[in-house]
Amino acid sequence: MSQQLGSVLFGDPFAVMNTIGLVAFALVGSAKAIREEFDLFGVAVVGLATAFVGGVTRDLLVNRVPLALQSPIEIALGLLGVVLAVVLSVGLSAPDEHTITVVSDAIGLAAFTTTGAIVATEAGVSAFGVVAIGTINAVGGGAFADILLDRSPFILFDDFYASCAVLGGISYWLVDGVGVIPSGAAAACAAVTVTLRLIAATRDWYVPTVQRLQSALDP
Amino acid sequence: MSQQLGSVLFGDPFAVMNTIGLVAFALVGSAKAIREEFDLFGVAVVGLATAFVGGVTRDLLVNRVPLALQSPIEIALGLLGVVLAVVLSVGLSAPDEHTITVVSDAIGLAAFTTTGAIVATEAGVSAFGVVAIGTINAVGGGAFADILLDRSPFILFDDFYASCAVLGGISYWLVDGVGVIPSGAAAACAAVTVTLRLIAATRDWYVPTVQRLQSALDP
Amino acid sequence: MSQQLGSVLFGDPFAVMNTIGLVAFALVGSAKAIREEFDLFGVAVVGLATAFVGGVTRDLLVNRVPLALQSPIEIALGLLGVVLAVVLSVGLSAPDEHTITVVSDAIGLAAFTTTGAIVATEAGVSAFGVVAIGTINAVGGGAFADILLDRSPFILFDDFYASCAVLGGISYWLVDGVGVIPSGAAAACAAVTVTLRLIAATRDWYVPTVQRLQSALDP
Repeated sequence: MSQQLGSVLFGDPFAVMNTIGLVAFALVGSAKAIREEFDLFGVAVVGLATAFVGGVTRDLLVNRVPLALQSPIEIALGLLGVVLAVVLSVGLSAPDEHTITVVSDAIGLAAFTTTGAIVATEAGVSAFGVVAIGTINAVGGGAFADILLDRSPFILFDDFYASCAVLGGISYWLVDGVGVIPSGAAAACAAVTVTLRLIAATRDWYVPTVQRLQSALDP
Repeated sequence: MSQQLGSVLFGDPFAVMNTIGLVAFALVGSAKAIREEFDLFGVAVVGLATAFVGGVTRDLLVNRVPLALQSPIEIALGLLGVVLAVVLSVGLSAPDEHTITVVSDAIGLAAFTTTGAIVATEAGVSAFGVVAIGTINAVGGGAFADILLDRSPFILFDDFYASCAVLGGISYWLVDGVGVIPSGAAAACAAVTVTLRLIAATRDWYVPTVQRLQSALDP
Repeated sequence: MSQQLGSVLFGDPFAVMNTIGLVAFALVGSAKAIREEFDLFGVAVVGLATAFVGGVTRDLLVNRVPLALQSPIEIALGLLGVVLAVVLSVGLSAPDEHTITVVSDAIGLAAFTTTGAIVATEAGVSAFGVVAIGTINAVGGGAFADILLDRSPFILFDDFYASCAVLGGISYWLVDGVGVIPSGAAAACAAVTVTLRLIAATRDWYVPTVQRLQSALDP
């Protein structure tokens, strides 16, 4: 049995978050593909892409063979999300908008941002690189899924979603720079990302457009 | 003269299949771009992308400089496919749907799946990684071409196409695991992929959607 | 202070061109995203993608960690372009079509093609690889930005833009092959690319489609 499964069963909180995130991301992507009447192969591809393309891009950027191609248990978690989306679609019109999914997705957003920031820091990139790789790790899969669905990535014009990852990544970099507490940076990043995302989803936060800023400045 | 050209002329069956595939894939991609009234540069880019992006992605995933950037003869074969698409478009409305093209494309699908599975096995990835890289090698170029043409990749909602590569990749992994016959895995992968694809094209097979499964279960 | 900033201040002409190009590319990408009413995060992503995705793709193809993730000053130049697009959008409906922008963009096209050709030559790829990587370095960011904006890359059907980079890349390869003058290849590539682009923009050059060729041949 794998180390990751052991970590989940015996309570490493970060492994638990990552596990929840993989299932939730795959479920969200697959549910979108089902609504577009993609076939079962397409549903699986969009679901797995949502869960793994962010991490694969992160690994390509720091020049390593993607972890997802080496870790069968991670793929199994992604496939579980795909199956859940198919089964839940029978009873629910939008299982990806259910509260449990939104909370699980926020947890995944935090876990993936943190993993990205850790890997980027180890790779020795700039502060911008840490924030960029953390954000790509967290939202790259969903953005790529939208491209497969022939639409603009929703993170670019809707919601307050990728911004949570950006602010989480900045928190990582700030706390890591102070450097007192071991794994303090990871904890700060995860806490900031998940908290902001849950508030944003509850309060319908969004990032303004230039047009809206203009009309606010010049009524 | 290159080793590959020698292999083709003196009868390595796999090199013959790869050669046919590169020309067919480039022809299919270019014909699509011509129908969308892309300019000649766009037609060449979409044709070459269809032939090479799958292999380039495979090489990026296993961390090597893409073969296509080092092998002039492969590029020449791709350009031949582009030129064929332009010339044949004068007489035929859809040279990419001609029987010769469909058969050549099926041969390419088999050759590219097999190459991907071999490279992935050498790179030491998981069983899922072998099937995924084989499939990406085979259908990644066509999927990327569809994105350039501003549409969803057809493999995600139409036809029984990528599924042939998936089943070919699984065959590779199964036979490779038994490990008795030298190059048995490659032969099995190529045979399964091309046979399934030719049957699928003849019989109009498709992968069901969730909606269709639901109405079948609940009439 | 970085070596690049020193080069710009004390007059390395290539560093000056690269600096102008980064700002212009980011401005052009951001202006497109503003017109599509993307939010401020989306405007920044599309602007930075336009400026950096070409170079990042180049680095991935030759297997190195992308320079953009290591160089804060390059990112600062990209962000300057984003801010300029936002500020100028208040007064101008299309700051990306202003003559200063078009000229700066042509300078960037030349600088990026040249950088790509140099890196590709160092990586030891084929002649096709040199031209392809030079062109991808120059136009890959703009093409990716168009995909984010849910449209086909404009370079594939409109204008005479990527073709300038292709011809610049060929010039690099030809002069580099002769090999007499130190940095003659880079100078030739940059001069050919920027000159062709400025003429093309002035004279409204375009690359013909197959349909137009047919009607010209068969009136």
